[in-house]
Parts: sequence; structure tokens; C-alpha cells
Amino acid sequence: MMQPLSFSASLTQSSRSLYYRFLSSSLPTSFFPNIRTQPKFYSNFSKCPLLIKGCSSITAKPSSQIRRNITHKSEPDEKLRALRELFSKPGVGIDAYIIPSQDAHQSEFIAECYMRRAYISGFTGSAGTVVVTKEQAALWTDGRYFLQAEKQLNSSWILMRAGNLGVPNTIEWLNDVLPPGAKVGIDPFLFSFDVAEELKEAIAKKNHKLIYLYDTNLVDEIWKESRPKPPNKPIRVHDIKYAGVDAASKLSYLRSQLLDAGSSAIVISMLDEIAWLLNLRGSDAPHSPVMYAYLTVEIDGAKLFVDNSKVTPEVLNHLKNAGVELRPYDAILSEIESLAARGVELWLDPSSVNAAIVNTYKSACDRHLENLGSKNDSMTKIYDGSNGQSWGPSGVYKASPISLAKALKNPAELQGMRDSHLRDAAALAQFWAWLEEEIHKDVKLTEVDVADKLLEFRSKQAGFLDTSFDSISGSGANGAIIHYKPEPKSCSIVDSKKLFLLDSGAQYVDGTTDITRTVHFGEPTAYEKECFTRVLQGHIALDQAVFPENTPGFVLDAFARSFLWKIGLDYRHGTGHGVGAALNVHEGPQSISFRFGNMTPLQKGMIVSNEPGYYEDHAFGIRIENLLHVKEINTPNRFGGMEYLGFEKLTFFPIQAKMVDVSLLSASEVNWLNDYHSQVWEKVSPLLDGPTHEWLWSNTRPLVKQ
Amino acid sequence: MMQPLSFSASLTQSSRSLYYRFLSSSLPTSFFPNIRTQPKFYSNFSKCPLLIKGCSSITAKPSSQIRRNITHKSEPDEKLRALRELFSKPGVGIDAYIIPSQDAHQSEFIAECYMRRAYISGFTGSAGTVVVTKEQAALWTDGRYFLQAEKQLNSSWILMRAGNLGVPNTIEWLNDVLPPGAKVGIDPFLFSFDVAEELKEAIAKKNHKLIYLYDTNLVDEIWKESRPKPPNKPIRVHDIKYAGVDAASKLSYLRSQLLDAGSSAIVISMLDEIAWLLNLRGSDAPHSPVMYAYLTVEIDGAKLFVDNSKVTPEVLNHLKNAGVELRPYDAILSEIESLAARGVELWLDPSSVNAAIVNTYKSACDRHLENLGSKNDSMTKIYDGSNGQSWGPSGVYKASPISLAKALKNPAELQGMRDSHLRDAAALAQFWAWLEEEIHKDVKLTEVDVADKLLEFRSKQAGFLDTSFDSISGSGANGAIIHYKPEPKSCSIVDSKKLFLLDSGAQYVDGTTDITRTVHFGEPTAYEKECFTRVLQGHIALDQAVFPENTPGFVLDAFARSFLWKIGLDYRHGTGHGVGAALNVHEGPQSISFRFGNMTPLQKGMIVSNEPGYYEDHAFGIRIENLLHVKEINTPNRFGGMEYLGFEKLTFFPIQAKMVDVSLLSASEVNWLNDYHSQVWEKVSPLLDGPTHEWLWSNTRPLVKQ
Repeated sequence: MMQPLSFSASLTQSSRSLYYRFLSSSLPTSFFPNIRTQPKFYSNFSKCPLLIKGCSSITAKPSSQIRRNITHKSEPDEKLRALRELFSKPGVGIDAYIIPSQDAHQSEFIAECYMRRAYISGFTGSAGTVVVTKEQAALWTDGRYFLQAEKQLNSSWILMRAGNLGVPNTIEWLNDVLPPGAKVGIDPFLFSFDVAEELKEAIAKKNHKLIYLYDTNLVDEIWKESRPKPPNKPIRVHDIKYAGVDAASKLSYLRSQLLDAGSSAIVISMLDEIAWLLNLRGSDAPHSPVMYAYLTVEIDGAKLFVDNSKVTPEVLNHLKNAGVELRPYDAILSEIESLAARGVELWLDPSSVNAAIVNTYKSACDRHLENLGSKNDSMTKIYDGSNGQSWGPSGVYKASPISLAKALKNPAELQGMRDSHLRDAAALAQFWAWLEEEIHKDVKLTEVDVADKLLEFRSKQAGFLDTSFDSISGSGANGAIIHYKPEPKSCSIVDSKKLFLLDSGAQYVDGTTDITRTVHFGEPTAYEKECFTRVLQGHIALDQAVFPENTPGFVLDAFARSFLWKIGLDYRHGTGHGVGAALNVHEGPQSISFRFGNMTPLQKGMIVSNEPGYYEDHAFGIRIENLLHVKEINTPNRFGGMEYLGFEKLTFFPIQAKMVDVSLLSASEVNWLNDYHSQVWEKVSPLLDGPTHEWLWSNTRPLVKQ
Repeated sequence: MMQPLSFSASLTQSSRSLYYRFLSSSLPTSFFPNIRTQPKFYSNFSKCPLLIKGCSSITAKPSSQIRRNITHKSEPDEKLRALRELFSKPGVGIDAYIIPSQDAHQSEFIAECYMRRAYISGFTGSAGTVVVTKEQAALWTDGRYFLQAEKQLNSSWILMRAGNLGVPNTIEWLNDVLPPGAKVGIDPFLFSFDVAEELKEAIAKKNHKLIYLYDTNLVDEIWKESRPKPPNKPIRVHDIKYAGVDAASKLSYLRSQLLDAGSSAIVISMLDEIAWLLNLRGSDAPHSPVMYAYLTVEIDGAKLFVDNSKVTPEVLNHLKNAGVELRPYDAILSEIESLAARGVELWLDPSSVNAAIVNTYKSACDRHLENLGSKNDSMTKIYDGSNGQSWGPSGVYKASPISLAKALKNPAELQGMRDSHLRDAAALAQFWAWLEEEIHKDVKLTEVDVADKLLEFRSKQAGFLDTSFDSISGSGANGAIIHYKPEPKSCSIVDSKKLFLLDSGAQYVDGTTDITRTVHFGEPTAYEKECFTRVLQGHIALDQAVFPENTPGFVLDAFARSFLWKIGLDYRHGTGHGVGAALNVHEGPQSISFRFGNMTPLQKGMIVSNEPGYYEDHAFGIRIENLLHVKEINTPNRFGGMEYLGFEKLTFFPIQAKMVDVSLLSASEVNWLNDYHSQVWEKVSPLLDGPTHEWLWSNTRPLVKQ
């Protein structure tokens, strides 16, 4: 599965601008122009509040059972009226309120109780931002959701079709409709510090002021009893046999990083970072095996801020062994204040930590300094004289050190990834064998039926926990919608005469999978075969790449496109994203993308997807995706003393031979495919029997180049 | 020929850091750390004062006739003594003086009278910087020149081996040896404004002050009568049949650019930009068909600042027709002052225009504003109230618009390039046929003999003017020295048992060539063949690349390396540079390089070199270089409405088949080579006869893949 595009990419009608947009911002430029949020070396899938792929399904339910209990087309005016009433409440006093999609942790997948934008607007798509003023209410979303938003929004709402010509972004609109000097409110927990700061600056151009409402989320106030309860499923310990390294060792490494950076504590808010660091897993959000929490780590202790009801005795014991104390989730701000008051130099990643935490720390530092000053009978700033530094703490603002540590998988994590991929392949073989048979029996199956059946097969595999994202099951033209999500009511029948694209993945106790295959159940056209073959050639070129250490992923991106380019084709998404080990299906810091702002080198132990594609609007979509592990290659030379790196495949599943135009392939490409299929057979066939065993056999036979 | 590397690249022992260095600066970081000189989208070969490839040969003389009349090993102390005496002269008052290699125009090749660094130090290598303090004198150069510098410097000098561990750069050294608050003098004509500003900031850390000595170059003052006269060869008109567009039209285009940028005049100091814009050519510097001049262009007029003695009646008439007036070369600063006094908003490219001009303009603008203020009986700044802009001019500081315009060749320029390349190929065929015969007759020829003979053949071709750079003629281990320049006294015999690399080019009246071929006269080893073949595969991959418009060159760079990477090999230079049409052999703004800071997209009409290589230290060097023209490719599709681009070959000359390990090539690579050789035969054979005709025939026979 590709990482979600920034709007600037997915919405640009021509890709002319793509090669340059990447530099200006990883934020959707159509929303927040000139706002630069994230360090360039971060990939952007999970950090940007306006890109969040929300999800209203719950863990591992078939799609057909999903009913959106937060969508009510009735009484929308009532909600807006109630919301606006709060604008003038004491302690609020705002002229507009921005409601983004995300939770307080920049999560890609969020719990229902945090789907405030969906609640207030009725629009349930994964991406969208709401702005409510005293007179107007507007929702911005992108082309994937125009139709859905038209249906779900009532007449009180303005639909802002982001990316369409002449449609202002949120800031342009705010700066246009509000009288100068207006007050724009946000919940500071829902914006990273960087985004909030840049939003503040952008609206300051019209003298608007950004108001942080710390104590209340206005949507929650009107949501009241109907608001879903926060998730409270138990946390579990991630077995050391899968984690490879115990939490105490990871904490010890982190502390050495703190000391190196001149800080004495860190606050971590990314849920996958907390889960990885403490070897814990949760079930608070769909697709991501994480729990809502914050973590502070000091040199001599650590505190996990989490709902106590989720903590089993086993987890409590595990945390105790790692020297981690428990605190209530809501106690994070008071802890931050206390750290500042104790003079602790706190490491904060301003691209991921929310504005509430960062600003609380900054204010507390200022107060701390003032107190010190008054104790010294002086209100002037105090310097120790030796290095011009003030005595008070001021914070260390840089990217979280856990992001890279987590990305470099250890042998146990890699083994878990390998093992879970084989079980996943077994489930997929059962599924595809079943699907082909049904289609050939002319059974009418919808895209959702098919995704549900795949879930059924996967859920029988040992260690299965959840899907790792909503399956993208697209027949014909739906395959060309890059982030298509079939809905039970509106999805298509899987058409035996069209290409079918299936991008899916699962969470297992030992690993996370993400695979895309594209097949035809009948006779593909020569053009479909040519497109497929060129996508495959790009896939092979990247898979086979060898490159010196310190090469950023974008250097390899063109390998995956070059065969399409030769006939004037391309695709508008990156080629590869990082994947967690029994964690999030999208993780940083590495990526392989034409957006060449990400300077993170590919490094031994990283996992990336390899997923070139081609999408013909209103016709078909093609994508071939495997996961790869970055490993050292034992090259006969080592020019400049460099290590050379390449890839080990984690995904072992047939690529449909029928789709390949062998005449386009070189001898070595044919060898690649045959060798791959022989490995698939060798590794996966022992897990299968009966007709599925036969299906795998017939789908792994070697091709012959004439 | 590759563009000269920045020191940071060529001197880094391991290329580990290469992938990151590019971003920090295009300046040699080992000299001026943290100094960022040029806009990222500029290639760096000709703009950096410390990278200039000076040349002491004169136009089209065989190397054997060259004697360096500026090298005197005698009386070096006397020179330093005389220089230091000037330090305390009234109007000077400095503690140190920096003498770079370059002229006032950031030229790659400079006239002898401007080779001040060579005069003062005795060191004649192309790259080097001198710093003289009251007590010490130091010369920085890079690894190519350590041996030569050791020989040429006398005992009064410290040789700073740039790039070696523990060797400080110039700024570190200045900041170390000078007492705080010292005055460091420079000739502000010899530093671009950007470099001077950043130098100023860097030494300010130790409270040193940068002193601009506008009125005198201290080296010239002691050089006196022995200083070579400034070049005074006549300027010639570049025929419209080669230029394609007349000067008046180019000026008119430039003026539209000025208006768009909100400026009303521009000063141009890059010599190739002046030559291109006015359709003039000169012979003031070796290898570059340019004349020393400045040009100012206003909306209603233009002035060329040039030595009148070079202006023939024909040129005078040509200039008159284009509306260009003549002014003395030395009158540039007074014209700049006058422009400012007239309130002209001047466009200056701070990366190429020297600090003397920019600072003169800035000071004059300030004075202009003060005068306006006093006329209005007020010393406060004057604003027109409408847009907050001051009334006085302040300058428009951005990259020269001529750089890109010049890079996009018109049909006449392209035709001239095609034609001159075929004549160049004919001369090369005569040369290689001769050389192979001599070697087989066991005649002992030095690398210089061989380069001289090539010059002899080339100079017989119609329209030949000069070499386009000093030939890199390297046998065996010398081929591994990337910018090797054989010297008559020290060069090697061309060894029939070793690889021989020859990188050379010529200036013709209609075009500029640059070609590298690597051959073996005997039996290459399997390893040499493998390396050659992988370099060739990279060459073919880049040659065959198709890519969407707006793709910067660096995206393609990995195509040229990927085959070497597979066996752990690489090369430490870029893959392609721009080339002028009957102009400089190195030009911007485009490049194809692993230094991915250059964001300039490759565009239709640009010319780039395609020159991957491999260099085995102390053993051999391989490089295969053709020039390519970026053209539109008529792809069957145009995804996203994009134009797709690719390359047309300009260079047609055999690649030695003996060096190719056919078993490594794919069928399509074999086809590429055979097709290329068949084109070479078709295009070049009509220009040849006798044994050379036969030589070409036997060197263009198709390979067969078993």
C-alpha cells in the first residue's frame, strides 16, 4: 500500500508541479500554503493533520458489518448552533474554530471517540478539515471524497473541493471571511507544535490571533453522552522473542541519546514509538497495534501516561521491570509543568509533539526562570557567565531519536516479519484460489465481499490480530483510484473482464504485512499487459538495486519509473514507505519517493515497500507491491571503503504470469520472475494443501522467453 | 570531460560524505566551511574562485611549446617582502591578503595577466589559494597538485594540503594565526559578492575585518613591467547562421525579463553570457571563445565595457545595429555609480557579479537615498506610501536570466553542434588510426606527444579555433587521476599494455566538442573489461533514458552508476555538465550529478555530457563520454499532459569493442552499441578516406551476443 499522498501531489491535475512541490512543504499546500511543518527527512504519511487516514471500522470486523454510528444527517444545524454558542462562552471568546481529523498523537488511524470532524460535519471520509465561523461552516476534502462529502454534508455546509481551481485553502478562506483581528480557536492537542506555529504566523498576516483552548474541546462539549467511550482494551506485552531487545535496554539506549543531545528527559507522543520502546502493544485504534499514551523518559526514571484500566497485572509487572511508573493519561500536562519547574532540559520533537505539550513546557520554563530571577532579587535574565546560556531549561527541539532506532529492525523483528509474511501468503493463496474459482463459476461478488473473504482467510492464520489498513479492493476503473475504499452500499462487482487490484495487509503477533497484486480473470488487452509488464520491470529494477550506504531512498525512485517513462507513463505516488515490525504499516523516517526532500539514507535493517503502479483514469489500476528488507550486499569490491546495500524480499506471493508480456522482458528480468516464483513455491507450499497447493503450483511455473 | 569537482568531493577519502556535502555548499568546504556561495540550482564549475581551472597554455599551441613565463623560482622572498611592504601603505592598512586563482568574471579559463596567484607563489596548478600575512605565506591546493606545489614553492611558503587530515582551511588558518581584530584584504573584483559576504561573516567570528581594496591589486603593483599585457586579440562577430537569433532579439527578450522582475537594468559579468547575448566571440582566454568585458543593459540602451583596441569596424557596426554603445573596460564602476544615481533598479546576480560592482551599487544607492532625503529637508527614509517601498533603488538580487536562455539551444546552434561534432570525429578517427599504428610499430610516444598530435589533426578541420580544455591524456595509472594534465617534463609514455584514457575537445566556429574514449592497445584483463562494460552500461542507460519534463538532472544520475554499484564500484564525479554552443565547454545551469542540490530541470535544447567512469587508483581509469542534446520524445502516451524528454547524441565516434564483455550486456544494450556504431559509420565515413576510412570501418562492425 502506498503511503497517502500529500494533497499537493494527489490533487495536482498535471504532475508538472510535483517535482517541485515536495520541497516547499510536506503539508497539503492547498490547505496551508507556505507552511513548512516537518523536517524534510521525515516521510509525511502520519504527521500531517490533514492527511490522516481516519477509519471508522473497528478492529478486524468484516466491512459489511460496519455501520457508521457517528453519521447523523439529522440536526446538523443544531450541532453548529450549539458549537457557535460556545464561541462566546467565558474562557473561549473566538470567532472561528478549526476541527482537524486527527488525534493528539498524529496517528494515521484513530479511535472513534476522536473523530470529531466526522461528528460535527457528518462527513466520514478519512481526510478533511472543518472550519466553523459565526456565520459559515466549511469542509475541505480532496478529490477522492467529493462525491461522498456532497452526500453527507447538509445545506448548512460549504464543501471546499481542495485542489480545484479557484478553491481557497483554509487559511486563505479564514483570512478572507474573518474581519481583521479575529480570534481563531483550536484544540492545541490536535496540532503538532510546528503546524500550530505556522498556522499562527499565516493568519497573523491579517492580524488574526490563534487561540489555544487547552481545557476544552468544543466538539466534545456538544457531543456529550453520544460520544463513544475512549478505547479501553487491555494492553499486552510484545513477547521478547518478537521484540528481540528488552524495554530496559531500549530505554538505556534512549538515555544515552538524551545525554548526547544535552537533554535530561524526553516526552514521546507517537503511539508506535511508545509501543516499540516499551515492547507493549494495544488495540485502541484499528489497524495499528498501539495504545493511547504519552511517555516521559528521564535519566533515572520513566512514566507512562495511560488509562489504568488497560493495564493488566502482566503489563504492570513488565513496566515495573523496565523501571516505568504509571500515571493517568490526562496527567501529562501537569508532568510537563513539573519537569520544567525542576529545571529539566526536555527533548521535544516539534513535528510530532502537540502544541499543548510544547507550549506548556515553554511557559513553565519561562515561569521557572522568573522564579529563579525573583529569588535572586532580580527580574533580569540570569546567565551563568561561562557560556552565555541561561540557567533555566529551554528544551531541545529535534526529531525523535526513536524513529530511526525503531526503523532499524533487529534479527528477531526480521524473523517475525519473514514468518508472518509466509502465513500471510498462505492465507492469500487460499483467498485467490477461492476467488478465481468463484469468478469462473460466475458468482457475483462485490469488492467488499472479496475483502471480507480475505479477512476470513487471514483471521484463521496463527497470530492474526487485525488488518493493517482498510483493504483497497478495486475492480476496473476503481483500481485507478489510488486510495479507493470500497463501501458496502456503493462498491462494484468484481468484474471478470477487468483488471482487479487488491492492496491489503495484516497485523500478526510477530509482524505486519502489506501486499498488492493485480490480476485479470479473463483476457487482458495488449495495452494492459504492456502497462503491467512495465510496472513489473520497475518493481524488479528496484528489487535488484545495489547502492552505496548513505543513499537516500529518492535516488532509487527513478529505477521504478524508468520503464513506464519510456512510453510516457508515470504514477503519482511514492514507490516505497517504511513498515513497522508488528507495528504501523506506515512508518518513517525513510521513504523511496520522487519527492526528494527526504534525505534519510536507506540503512541495514530498514523495511520498505516496493510498489510501483500505473493508473489509467476511468479504466484500470495496476500496482505490484512487495515488502523488502534493506541488507548488506557482499559485493566483490567496496569502492571508497563503502558498504553496499540491497534488498531481501519479505513478501512471497505469485505475480500473475498472464499479465506479463514476456517479449518486453530482458533475459535477466525473466530469470528474476522465475527465481522469485520458485522461492514462493519453496517457502509457501509447505503451508498449503489440496486445491490451494495446486493453485500455488500452477501460479509459480517458470515463464519462457522466446 | 567531467566538470571539476569541488574539493569536498575530490578530496574526501571515502565518499561516505559525498551524498551530504553537496547540500551544504558548492564551495570547497575544506577551504571555506559553512560558506554557501551559489544558488543551489547552479552548477559549480565556473563560479567558485577556488575551483577555477586556470591554464597557462595559450590558444591552440601544442603543449610541448608551452613554457611558463610566469614561473620564477628565484627571488620569491623579494616578492613576498614587496607585497608585505604594501600592507602598511596609506589606503591599504591590512594584516593579511588573500590571492585567489580567478579573474573578475568567475571564468574557468583565465588570461595570463590575471594569474596573480601563480605569479606570487610560483605554483602554476589550476587550483589554489594564497594567503599572505605579515609573517607567513601559505598556499592551499588539492591532491592533484601536492607534488607540483612541493616542487614550485620555495621555503618561504607553507603548502596546505587541502583535504588531508588536520589541515585547516583558509578561514580556520586566518582565524588561528591572526590576532583578533585583524584586517584581511582582498581585491573585491576577484570574489563574487556572495563569497565575499560569507568570507566577511566567517572571519568576523574572530573580529577580523574584511578590507576591500578597490583601487589596487597588490600583486599587480609588484608584478609591474613583467606582468603580461591584457589580451588584445580582435573580437569577431559570431555569424547569425551559427547564432540563430540576432543580438537585438536577445536583448529584447532580456529586457522583457528585466521588466518582469521589476528592474530596469542589469549588469552582466560572466564572459560567456556577454558573448552569447551579443553574438560576439573573442580570444582573450585559452579554450573559451570570449572577450574580457562587462555589459550593462537598460530598457532603452546597452553599454559594452571592453578594451577598444579589440573592436574591429565590423564588430562596431554589429554593436551599433544592436543598439550597444562602447565604454572602456575600466569604466564599469563609474557606470554602476551613475546607474544608482539615476535611480535605476539594477539586477545583479550575487553569485557571479563581483563584490566590487555589487558594493559600489549598494553604496551609491545609499548615497542616492541620502541626497533625496536632504533635498526633501529630511534625513529620514522616504516612502511613497503606496506599497511601503522606499523611493531609492535597492537592486534585484537573483540568478542571471541569461544562464538558462543560453542553455536552451536554438536550431541553428544545434545544427552547428551536430556539424562540428562530425568534423571533430573525422579528426579523431585520423588521430586514433595514427596512434594505433604508431603504438603497434612500438614508437615511444608520451601522453603530451599524443595530445599534440590530436591538436594537429583537429586544427586541420574547417572552422577549428582552439582546444576546449587541456587534453586529459592518461596512460595506465595516470588515467585514474580524474583531472590529470600531462606535463612535457613529467608525463608518461603511452603504454601499449595499459588502458589509455583520452578526454579532449575543441572549439570550432560553429560548435564546441568534448569527448572521452578509453582504449587498450593490447589485451585488457577480464577485470578491466568488466569495469569498462559496466561504465558502458551506465552510459547506455543514461543515453536511453526517457523522463518527464521538470526532472532535474540528478534524478538520472543513478542510472549511470547502477551497473557499477552492483559490484561495489562507483566514481567520484558527476555524470554530466552543460556545454555551450561555440562557447564554454562547461556551462550551467543544468547538471547530472549525485550532488542533488541542483534543481534545474533538464529542458528541451539543453546540451549535457554523458560521462560515467571508473578509476582504480594506481592502476587505470575508464571514462566514456558523449555529448547529448535534450529533446522531446514522441512517447505513445503523455501521462498527466506532460512532455517526455530524452536525448539525441551529438558525438559519433567508436567505442572500442575489444573492451566490451559482451556476456554482461543485455540484448538491447548490444543493439544500442551496434546501432550507434552503424550511425557513426554512416555519418563520419563520408569525411574520411584511405586507411582512416578503413579504421572507421573496422571499428564500427557489429558485436554479436552469443
